[in-house]
Amino acid sequence: MPLIEVSYTPENFEVYDSSESIVVVNDIFRATSAICTAFEHGAKAMIPVETIEEARALQKKGYLAGAERNAEKVEGFDFGNSPYDYMGDNIKGKTLVLTTTNGTRAIEMAKKNSEVIVIGSFLNISALSKWLVGQKKNVIILCSGWKGRINLEDSLFAGALTKELIQDGTYSMEHDVEDSALIAMHLFEMAQKDPEKLLKVSSHRRRLARLNLKEDIRFCLTLNTTNKIPILIGDELVDLETTDLK
Amino acid sequence: MPLIEVSYTPENFEVYDSSESIVVVNDIFRATSAICTAFEHGAKAMIPVETIEEARALQKKGYLAGAERNAEKVEGFDFGNSPYDYMGDNIKGKTLVLTTTNGTRAIEMAKKNSEVIVIGSFLNISALSKWLVGQKKNVIILCSGWKGRINLEDSLFAGALTKELIQDGTYSMEHDVEDSALIAMHLFEMAQKDPEKLLKVSSHRRRLARLNLKEDIRFCLTLNTTNKIPILIGDELVDLETTDLK
Repeated sequence: MPLIEVSYTPENFEVYDSSESIVVVNDIFRATSAICTAFEHGAKAMIPVETIEEARALQKKGYLAGAERNAEKVEGFDFGNSPYDYMGDNIKGKTLVLTTTNGTRAIEMAKKNSEVIVIGSFLNISALSKWLVGQKKNVIILCSGWKGRINLEDSLFAGALTKELIQDGTYSMEHDVEDSALIAMHLFEMAQKDPEKLLKVSSHRRRLARLNLKEDIRFCLTLNTTNKIPILIGDELVDLETTDLK
Repeated sequence: MPLIEVSYTPENFEVYDSSESIVVVNDIFRATSAICTAFEHGAKAMIPVETIEEARALQKKGYLAGAERNAEKVEGFDFGNSPYDYMGDNIKGKTLVLTTTNGTRAIEMAKKNSEVIVIGSFLNISALSKWLVGQKKNVIILCSGWKGRINLEDSLFAGALTKELIQDGTYSMEHDVEDSALIAMHLFEMAQKDPEKLLKVSSHRRRLARLNLKEDIRFCLTLNTTNKIPILIGDELVDLETTDLK
């Protein structure tokens, strides 16, 4: 039977055997929420890159490019990593470039030895879960975390996705859920009962709140605003619907 | 104010700034439970080593040596990593050698850039917490995990210790508890309400249960069987009471 596991940081992802698994990269505040939003608003593809320099080089070649470091937009770029930056007509049909503190780094780590890499967020969780269940493969949920540390919102997403996968019946709680996913799921169940209790004391949320990102936080925690599932083909994220894996 | 953080695996420990922190290494099933038990039963010191070869070399020099790999005692050694191996008269006043799959590896990782490293388990949690509170320093709880992955029992210990530290009032929930510790604490609170719910489906517990280690599991989850706090001085763990840091 397939297994569900969670890697809470990119730093320890290499211990997972991802060669025959589907890896779901998430960075809830805000990279993967922004990526899902961009596809919902008509982006054709996105090129995640690890460094500011790579992003700048591609921008000079004519790409629209987004860049975020330490939760702020980097000067000289077209977008930051707020989902609200990726809702305009200017992105329709375009290939965008994106680099962020944690999210694009996680994608880079996943690329090293993974066959199938998709992008998850609360915004596309049900479409993603439905597709994953149909694949009947091991799932590794790779959280981007915050500079090598576990964070709350990515863990909650990992728990929410685990729960959706189990509810379908393909994966069983007793045999297919590793401790890593079990922890996330219980955390999510607790948060469902009392979301404020957990999130109001979150250290990363405190960090974002100081930057006046309350609207972004609310948006990134919204369920199912899109059915798009971004998937990495080569070096580009594209809409799963345009590929053979749909 | 001092911070409380949790590193859930040795693999991402290097991102933590542990130079001015006290690092609490734990490997609940079973290395650090065995270490605390050995000190309670009169061991003078323990030398944690990373490899079987190092342990064997020291054993040849006359040390009593314990070795565990994949939850089983390695042939030719005096002990495995069951706490029950470390209760006999034969260890009184002795310096023992120990190598385990995850626990001694975590100690090695911690040694790279930490000033103060102590050993934690449920067996010494209250004595440890009381001493930590008196130090008024940042605390990093380093879980050994299972082969690079987060596990349930070490996470529960991290949560239990965080909770004890907060209850004293020196550390505040709103400002001093990072997401990593917040997650552990909520997990522990849930487990307190319904311990069976979490542990009965734990993948690592399933692994140990297959090896007939139910007695060990029960023992390792017992609170406060000892006041000993093993601390690393140079390459040896010794009883904190015999040092200047007591």
